[in-house]
Amino acid sequence: MAAQSVAVIGAGAVGSYYGARLAQAGHDVRFLMRRDFRAVRQSGLRVTSPDGDFDLPSPSVHDDSSQIGHVDWVLCALKTTSLGDAPALVAPCLGPDTRILCLMNGLGVEERFADWFGEERIFGGLAFTCINREKPGCVSHLRYGAVTVGHLGDDPAEVQRALDLWSGATVDFDGTPSLLRSRWEKLGWNIPFNGLCVAGGAITTDRVVTDPDLRAAARRTMDEIVDAGNADLAAHGQTARIDRDAMIERMFGLTDAMGAYRPSTMIDFVEGRPMEVEEMFAEPLRRARALGVDTPHIALLTALMRSLDQRREGD
Amino acid sequence: MAAQSVAVIGAGAVGSYYGARLAQAGHDVRFLMRRDFRAVRQSGLRVTSPDGDFDLPSPSVHDDSSQIGHVDWVLCALKTTSLGDAPALVAPCLGPDTRILCLMNGLGVEERFADWFGEERIFGGLAFTCINREKPGCVSHLRYGAVTVGHLGDDPAEVQRALDLWSGATVDFDGTPSLLRSRWEKLGWNIPFNGLCVAGGAITTDRVVTDPDLRAAARRTMDEIVDAGNADLAAHGQTARIDRDAMIERMFGLTDAMGAYRPSTMIDFVEGRPMEVEEMFAEPLRRARALGVDTPHIALLTALMRSLDQRREGD
Repeated sequence: MAAQSVAVIGAGAVGSYYGARLAQAGHDVRFLMRRDFRAVRQSGLRVTSPDGDFDLPSPSVHDDSSQIGHVDWVLCALKTTSLGDAPALVAPCLGPDTRILCLMNGLGVEERFADWFGEERIFGGLAFTCINREKPGCVSHLRYGAVTVGHLGDDPAEVQRALDLWSGATVDFDGTPSLLRSRWEKLGWNIPFNGLCVAGGAITTDRVVTDPDLRAAARRTMDEIVDAGNADLAAHGQTARIDRDAMIERMFGLTDAMGAYRPSTMIDFVEGRPMEVEEMFAEPLRRARALGVDTPHIALLTALMRSLDQRREGD
Repeated sequence: MAAQSVAVIGAGAVGSYYGARLAQAGHDVRFLMRRDFRAVRQSGLRVTSPDGDFDLPSPSVHDDSSQIGHVDWVLCALKTTSLGDAPALVAPCLGPDTRILCLMNGLGVEERFADWFGEERIFGGLAFTCINREKPGCVSHLRYGAVTVGHLGDDPAEVQRALDLWSGATVDFDGTPSLLRSRWEKLGWNIPFNGLCVAGGAITTDRVVTDPDLRAAARRTMDEIVDAGNADLAAHGQTARIDRDAMIERMFGLTDAMGAYRPSTMIDFVEGRPMEVEEMFAEPLRRARALGVDTPHIALLTALMRSLDQRREGD
């Protein structure tokens, strides 16, 4: 398709990687960066990846989103702990037809964007991938990388527009007919593996899948997520449901092959940064409780994660 | 009663405190010490306590239990992480009529002693107390202190013998008609508060009881302990049962008044020492599973505690 203009807001590991893939495909990508701004402006952006290493020697990089201008697409990859910054950062990039793809974790993020900017232009992207930021300006894509994209109103024509954007990029993109179902399915990985890796003492995912008790706890957490997710889908009047066995089998299959991976929240924990507790843990728990679904594992992991997050603040 | 000879094996905070109370009451108490041996031999043992501070200027202290000789009572207050050392440490103190009071945490400890030394002489003591070791030779009794004592065979005459030993000591001692029930009731504190304080980021008990989510998790953990404990009592042919509401109310009542207390396991965790995971968490979980009782909170806390304990070893 014709080159589109894209603003990447929140260019950490995930935003930088996917934005760089769009730039590689010929789109006009403009990165808003904080920590890496100077390094990238000076030396460009370097990506290592099993799908091919590449450099963007002089990408369009900004430290103020008002310099970016109106774009066709905003790719928002902020951490949810910075979600409150999103309106001010995103608004300057919006023209009347700008679409916003939220490449973020957790539940309820797109609804927040809809409150700010209107539902019809909001998309959610779920990246199932292992990407770590190395030194400033260097992103290391380790494994996987597929993105599932959905439209907040589940409009198939809009989903197709998002797929068109990515059609030339070296990224495995597919569309979902139910963004809400896909969000819950992603939580089926995020809650157990982020939660157990952090609360288990900053361990890697291989420790969780190879310890029989932690693995069993992960599986039961997934069961609760399926229960809560399907209740939430029903409450939203959707006919889509999570296929329990398929989802659990897929999550373990992917994680069994993942090696000693450090989930994003575990890295945040170890490095003393805020963790994505609210959208990744607390919001799913709130919905489960409101729907009367019993989710003891989610509740316990949420309580521990919140305590561990507060402890960081207290230290 | 007439002075009895007592060997205190494992004179950490708890052993030192209760042994000192027996010595204060006129019994012939002989301490086996490791870390504090030199300090106590040189400067005695100092106890601070809301029930009255006191000193033992020159207690009988040994670093080798073969020097202790046969005694009327062995008070074994080893940490369960050193349970494997108990046979060799205790055996030299045993005459034909020596009784053994295990003042230790967790489940199944008395049964291990019964395997080694015969059931009829084995007692269990459950100390509900806040005692920390300060500098070598100094023990700080902070709050509470009551001990419940039971006989492994639940022989009332034997329970009375144990109570007689303590009748002159400044310790609130009472007997239990069911050692097994009392063990499970004690786990009703130990599992939630040790588990959540450690996994929640080395927090104190006040954080658990004042955070609504952690408090709810503690309550549900207690519910599971009641379920498992009552099933275990039934499986042992006992008619005794845990009174759910009374137990839970008592545990929260005590803990609400406890302030910023650091449970023993949390101190071990912070100081990089082995934690009492097997007897305090894993054995109750094993029994619950064998009895078909669903205990997701106990299972998850056990898995996390074991992971955190292994992490310590790996560091």
